[in-house]
Amino acid sequence: MSDNKTWSGRFNEPVSELVKKYTGSIDFDKRLAKWDIQGSLAHAQMLQQAGVLSVEDLSAIRQGMADIISEIDAGRMIWSLDLEDVHMNIERRLTDKIGDAGKRLHTGRSRNDQVATDIRLWLRDQISDIQVLIHDLQMALVDLAEKNADIVMPGFTHLQVAQPVSFGHHMLAYVEMLGRDDERMADCRKRVNRMPLGAAALAGTTYPIKRETTAELLGFEQICQNSLDAVSDRDFAIEFTAAASLLMIHLSRLSEELILWMSPRFGFIDIADRFCTGSSIMPQKKNPDVPELVRGKSGRVIGHLTTLLMLMKSQPLAYNKDNQEDKEPLFDTVDTLIDTLRIYADMMRGVSVKPENMRAAVLQGFATATDLADYLVKKGMPFRDSHETVALAVRHADTEGVDLSDLPLETLQSFSNLIDKDIYDVLTPEGSLNARNHIGGTAPEQVQLQVKRWRGLLAD
Amino acid sequence: MSDNKTWSGRFNEPVSELVKKYTGSIDFDKRLAKWDIQGSLAHAQMLQQAGVLSVEDLSAIRQGMADIISEIDAGRMIWSLDLEDVHMNIERRLTDKIGDAGKRLHTGRSRNDQVATDIRLWLRDQISDIQVLIHDLQMALVDLAEKNADIVMPGFTHLQVAQPVSFGHHMLAYVEMLGRDDERMADCRKRVNRMPLGAAALAGTTYPIKRETTAELLGFEQICQNSLDAVSDRDFAIEFTAAASLLMIHLSRLSEELILWMSPRFGFIDIADRFCTGSSIMPQKKNPDVPELVRGKSGRVIGHLTTLLMLMKSQPLAYNKDNQEDKEPLFDTVDTLIDTLRIYADMMRGVSVKPENMRAAVLQGFATATDLADYLVKKGMPFRDSHETVALAVRHADTEGVDLSDLPLETLQSFSNLIDKDIYDVLTPEGSLNARNHIGGTAPEQVQLQVKRWRGLLAD
Amino acid sequence: MSDNKTWSGRFNEPVSELVKKYTGSIDFDKRLAKWDIQGSLAHAQMLQQAGVLSVEDLSAIRQGMADIISEIDAGRMIWSLDLEDVHMNIERRLTDKIGDAGKRLHTGRSRNDQVATDIRLWLRDQISDIQVLIHDLQMALVDLAEKNADIVMPGFTHLQVAQPVSFGHHMLAYVEMLGRDDERMADCRKRVNRMPLGAAALAGTTYPIKRETTAELLGFEQICQNSLDAVSDRDFAIEFTAAASLLMIHLSRLSEELILWMSPRFGFIDIADRFCTGSSIMPQKKNPDVPELVRGKSGRVIGHLTTLLMLMKSQPLAYNKDNQEDKEPLFDTVDTLIDTLRIYADMMRGVSVKPENMRAAVLQGFATATDLADYLVKKGMPFRDSHETVALAVRHADTEGVDLSDLPLETLQSFSNLIDKDIYDVLTPEGSLNARNHIGGTAPEQVQLQVKRWRGLLAD
Amino acid sequence: MSDNKTWSGRFNEPVSELVKKYTGSIDFDKRLAKWDIQGSLAHAQMLQQAGVLSVEDLSAIRQGMADIISEIDAGRMIWSLDLEDVHMNIERRLTDKIGDAGKRLHTGRSRNDQVATDIRLWLRDQISDIQVLIHDLQMALVDLAEKNADIVMPGFTHLQVAQPVSFGHHMLAYVEMLGRDDERMADCRKRVNRMPLGAAALAGTTYPIKRETTAELLGFEQICQNSLDAVSDRDFAIEFTAAASLLMIHLSRLSEELILWMSPRFGFIDIADRFCTGSSIMPQKKNPDVPELVRGKSGRVIGHLTTLLMLMKSQPLAYNKDNQEDKEPLFDTVDTLIDTLRIYADMMRGVSVKPENMRAAVLQGFATATDLADYLVKKGMPFRDSHETVALAVRHADTEGVDLSDLPLETLQSFSNLIDKDIYDVLTPEGSLNARNHIGGTAPEQVQLQVKRWRGLLAD
Repeated sequence: MSDNKTWSGRFNEPVSELVKKYTGSIDFDKRLAKWDIQGSLAHAQMLQQAGVLSVEDLSAIRQGMADIISEIDAGRMIWSLDLEDVHMNIERRLTDKIGDAGKRLHTGRSRNDQVATDIRLWLRDQISDIQVLIHDLQMALVDLAEKNADIVMPGFTHLQVAQPVSFGHHMLAYVEMLGRDDERMADCRKRVNRMPLGAAALAGTTYPIKRETTAELLGFEQICQNSLDAVSDRDFAIEFTAAASLLMIHLSRLSEELILWMSPRFGFIDIADRFCTGSSIMPQKKNPDVPELVRGKSGRVIGHLTTLLMLMKSQPLAYNKDNQEDKEPLFDTVDTLIDTLRIYADMMRGVSVKPENMRAAVLQGFATATDLADYLVKKGMPFRDSHETVALAVRHADTEGVDLSDLPLETLQSFSNLIDKDIYDVLTPEGSLNARNHIGGTAPEQVQLQVKRWRGLLAD
Repeated sequence: MSDNKTWSGRFNEPVSELVKKYTGSIDFDKRLAKWDIQGSLAHAQMLQQAGVLSVEDLSAIRQGMADIISEIDAGRMIWSLDLEDVHMNIERRLTDKIGDAGKRLHTGRSRNDQVATDIRLWLRDQISDIQVLIHDLQMALVDLAEKNADIVMPGFTHLQVAQPVSFGHHMLAYVEMLGRDDERMADCRKRVNRMPLGAAALAGTTYPIKRETTAELLGFEQICQNSLDAVSDRDFAIEFTAAASLLMIHLSRLSEELILWMSPRFGFIDIADRFCTGSSIMPQKKNPDVPELVRGKSGRVIGHLTTLLMLMKSQPLAYNKDNQEDKEPLFDTVDTLIDTLRIYADMMRGVSVKPENMRAAVLQGFATATDLADYLVKKGMPFRDSHETVALAVRHADTEGVDLSDLPLETLQSFSNLIDKDIYDVLTPEGSLNARNHIGGTAPEQVQLQVKRWRGLLAD
Repeated sequence: MSDNKTWSGRFNEPVSELVKKYTGSIDFDKRLAKWDIQGSLAHAQMLQQAGVLSVEDLSAIRQGMADIISEIDAGRMIWSLDLEDVHMNIERRLTDKIGDAGKRLHTGRSRNDQVATDIRLWLRDQISDIQVLIHDLQMALVDLAEKNADIVMPGFTHLQVAQPVSFGHHMLAYVEMLGRDDERMADCRKRVNRMPLGAAALAGTTYPIKRETTAELLGFEQICQNSLDAVSDRDFAIEFTAAASLLMIHLSRLSEELILWMSPRFGFIDIADRFCTGSSIMPQKKNPDVPELVRGKSGRVIGHLTTLLMLMKSQPLAYNKDNQEDKEPLFDTVDTLIDTLRIYADMMRGVSVKPENMRAAVLQGFATATDLADYLVKKGMPFRDSHETVALAVRHADTEGVDLSDLPLETLQSFSNLIDKDIYDVLTPEGSLNARNHIGGTAPEQVQLQVKRWRGLLAD
Repeated sequence: MSDNKTWSGRFNEPVSELVKKYTGSIDFDKRLAKWDIQGSLAHAQMLQQAGVLSVEDLSAIRQGMADIISEIDAGRMIWSLDLEDVHMNIERRLTDKIGDAGKRLHTGRSRNDQVATDIRLWLRDQISDIQVLIHDLQMALVDLAEKNADIVMPGFTHLQVAQPVSFGHHMLAYVEMLGRDDERMADCRKRVNRMPLGAAALAGTTYPIKRETTAELLGFEQICQNSLDAVSDRDFAIEFTAAASLLMIHLSRLSEELILWMSPRFGFIDIADRFCTGSSIMPQKKNPDVPELVRGKSGRVIGHLTTLLMLMKSQPLAYNKDNQEDKEPLFDTVDTLIDTLRIYADMMRGVSVKPENMRAAVLQGFATATDLADYLVKKGMPFRDSHETVALAVRHADTEGVDLSDLPLETLQSFSNLIDKDIYDVLTPEGSLNARNHIGGTAPEQVQLQVKRWRGLLAD
């Protein structure tokens, strides 16, 4: 009996239980239910306008779907593995409720274009949510930047002390990165927001459908212009996962820094206790679990990217069952991103700064050596020569175990007689900071200008 | 109050709910419960032998753990997110039951070595199961090979017809691949089966533990010789996932072939209906869903491999929270592998062969051209010259739209007068097949020898 | 002596030869020379305008650089590993030629912002070239589509015959995919085309630089607004590689199809001999090497994407030497893409179509079963019921070994008395094709409309 | 004219120049020349024993190949892209030298089994070299461990100070990891060292070949038992690349630590100047370039692993051209591994330790809190209770800004009256170290035992 199956008439034996479990997707695709119904309602309305469904059928479908939404919201919907996926579960439930009108809903479409539509509707909404969360995290970082525009810390290259930078400036570097992540999400959303519905199984349909109507009802910006392409490509999902990977990479970098800065040897910051955990054996431990997990979870999202690329590679047109495997990685990518962004904005608001440790670290690595070289250049020495002169001075100071600013004037002058006592202003961290006062530079004045710029952008 | 937490004495505020959810692992690591208890019981027995626990404590712990196992089996164990993970959930439940003896169990160990032990115990068992399933799939393929040793099909290179091969021979190629997968699992298992317990948090412990005793109780072949390494590396899990990836790659190749062969243009095989599904729109469809999904799932496992490698990269010693992210990819890899192997063995037993289509395909691609070249070599022509001679003959036959064996003798002789009428035996598919009668060759006699060899190996 | 080194004053011993080789990049980054000089010339002009360089210095630098370009073009430039990279090689050569003015060029910048600028200038140009090549390949496909709009072939899902489609329609599916690839390249180019120069080592510089001036001279659309971000992120390169991966994935799909279609069992197309190779042993072989290699090379580009993501993960700010490893994967990605696009457009112009084989294949898989179902719906049967009715008819025809259109009317009517003799028009491939006449559908009329649409888009 | 081509007789037009460049492999596979000749000589000797080649032919082949080797060694061999690959270049050169005997060499084999044999012979040798280099790096680490067995440093978990560990112990953790890498290389080598030769194109050959003879001549341990499998699988190369990835991951971890430890805030070690480089702008910089590049290069190798997995996925049997893409990633993996291992052993011998900074860091993080907890347990308190007691003491000391060992006895006793003045011995770093004196523990005595154990293992 074909009681529970959609294609049984052609088959000699029922699908085995093991196969049902292996090929069924209802366990994970039921989360698309709301978007599936949204798509079905627009499809039905269009069918009615096109004269394929009667007004009565449309009305029955709307009523039935409203009931189903209530059942889902109330947790009363029973999802059946025998019905494979969210589409068949909802259609069957609808037919149980309203009879033949339910059986007519699937006219002029296929699960191939239906599922592609569902995922796009769903992902479009998720991207919008993600963009809001990105903005919130940016705002938390902008707040930190404003508050700490004057705080001097060592800027590192190669994890060696390079030059003094403003802690606010450092925070703003991540605001920039997140800004590009946000742009990528917006660019990706354009390509997500195109409607495959109407492609049917792969070739279009023989019914007089009006795709523009359905697209307008569903808020799609464009219509997929080729039915084979519409049902078979998932590049929009891969592009999203690539953008998500970059976002996670950016957060993995900030996480690495938070972990370093909270390590006692650095001691640059503290993270509020509510974001940390302890140890089952070592009573003194306070561990920065959240940034560590974020660092780890970047691998998770990138693994999903690999999965999706691997999935799509060398697939002949049009739809193949392989594509069912696109959902779990995509869902988990979205969940990871949303959870991570939410917790990160919270956590950054729980970061406290230890300026004295940062300043001590600046003084530990000849951070103003470049300032000395620039000083000599301004007095007329070519840069390459001044670089070499300062290198020798640093070597001397290193041997003595002191900072450049601790060397007496005559010692400094032994490296170049262009040096005068105004050099000591140049060699302070604050002097160094303020001297880099151009667009993009670390001077506190520039930091405040960037804070203002970002407040403007984020207010839009 | 530190009622529910293991480290609260040092903390000023409780962990936020969002953080609990983000950092907790109980949702997925509770599946380790059985192995966690196994490890704890051995640890307790060792502690008692070492004089750290009393006989009474050990006895209480055993009784308590037995109760907990019953609760888990009966689905009555309540897992609490407040207690983070499977280890703390079980320990707290034990302490609730037996009091101070439960609090003493964690003496001389840490969750760091405990979780590393749990995963190894669990993975060791899974590998054993996987090896049994590999053998079963190999047996299904060997059976197919034996039954079809004489069936001739086109061997392809570049998906162009190359030379005739035995369908049995083709099946045995996969038995060989799976044989190497099995070897890799066995090699990996050696490295999994080493005991980290005793490493404690990272440095060992001050208690007089006897690691050899615990290892023996747990059936570990070796003891991890360095505590820092023991708690921090997950290379065994990555090695397993790499071996799993190769296995899935092998099955992706067989899946690709099954899909091709079941396509009507090939029509080489049929897969029993119970492994196929239909279409919601196209009533005629019978789709090879299972091999398609396996092909897709190979990307899933490889994505997990990427995740795990990314996770471990650049982690400083010793344990970092990032490592909590190792579990879900590892669990899903094992689940995917086990489900796939099981369904694959079943499915291969449901494959039926269509010899007439295979034979027709052999005759469509000049499959015996090499045999003609070899024939000329045996009559004295150097191989490179015979190759060129046959190329011209093929070009002629192709223009005529016939097979080489359809060309009249005088036409063949116009390409080389070394050709005589015994050439027509050489140009049959069966003649070609039987002529490759050496170890590893496609002759049916060799296929049967390999079938016998594998039956012997698999019987061990 | 620090003769050949840029930082030796601080060092006690020279870099070992092994280390020079391991850390040097001149072997691969010399290809950036032209863009490095472009950046230096703009930097020098800005420095002169800012009063940092004299008019004479600028003039000398311009003359020196012109000489160096000539030397490079003539293959006379000697690249030295002792000078590590392209930047120092050019600067040293310049200083050899023009003395102190050369030493002054590096004022107000660092190799950190210099290399980031070079890569962006270079990549910007490559993306423009790639977009031209994408358009050319699209045009080749559009030409094929126009010529073959009426050619009917089986549309596959699950590699099972699904419904008839137009071969032109099938080609246009790839035009759509490439259209999105082109969009992604354009979106990425926006983010590439931003200027890091002025960030200096990581914090900006103390010289009165005018970044807007340099940006305008170099044609950058925006200026990187944060110096730490400017020197340390490579997200633009990763985004490009992700877009390149998707493009290669799309071509891997087309390649898979070309290989399938050229296999004798399909026999749908032929690829001109000049794109194929033979076998060293099998004289009859003509292998589709190019699409096979493209399929293989998709893995190469995706491997580079993995490399770049892995590279960037968890790097603390700002520049770390790890980033030197960004160049080889990026260069190879660009080279692979350009070579592949070029050869692909050529090859598609060498594809010939075998309509009779395609049509035969349509008739082999009940391709018009959906049309029969739709016919019944239009006569009043709910779709789900018609689907089941047709499934039974297909099962009957399959058992008889005939197509649906071969069944006598009374047999068809035994499945439903709604069937009349007009059914036979519906059951032809051409009838099926023409009936899908809506935007995105496979009807030849729609194909020609899309051809026109794309000709318009590509003419811009 | 077919002058330069091996299959032209069947083709109507020559291969285009672009295609030649795209499909040719001679630029990279010529490095296999030595192993290709090794295989050919064994093949020829076997053919002669089997009666297929005459003694004179064999003698001519041997002489011709000796000449070719001389030409290659002298850099006089001219590699031609027209001849595609290393196999055809050498065969053609041989035929030019010795005539028909050269044309007979290719009897009974194909490039498909020939290239598979070449790669295995080559990789087998590379693995042996790699194992020697692993042992050398292990020895460098063992030497460091022995010398620094007593040096106390903070052991970190979560990059927070956990417990004191011996620096020697820390070094030995990497010796263990490398030991497993070495095991994996050995396991992989077994599977590499199997002979595909005799599989010919895909089905075996009609000549009376003796594969056991060839295998013995070439030192292969086993013969591939299935011709289809022999020419088509590359799992051995993927397994090698996976093992290489793990090795690089291990080195990425050590690199991360070296970079951290050399950062001035840690200041735990110094790396000799010859392994470091400076900055073009900041005169004071001394950057740990080598570990940074190693960290970066781990991504490179993992990218190659992704490439190879992607390459093989879903390939139907037997050989496809895709497989040509296996070589560059494999070659680069081997080169990266060999260069990295060599430079790493050198560099570790240039690491100097700063014990005073390490000890200072131990005292900065309550590293002996666990020892206090253990002390209380030994006095009778259950571990969970002692953990909580110590947590409160740590919180108090943290507020006071002192170490636990700085708290007066009465303060300590206010947390538990089980504490007596012997507690101060327990709270020293050295006391903590020595107390972990069991197999795998960090006590200097254990470190020296492990040094001895490894010296024994590495001496074998």
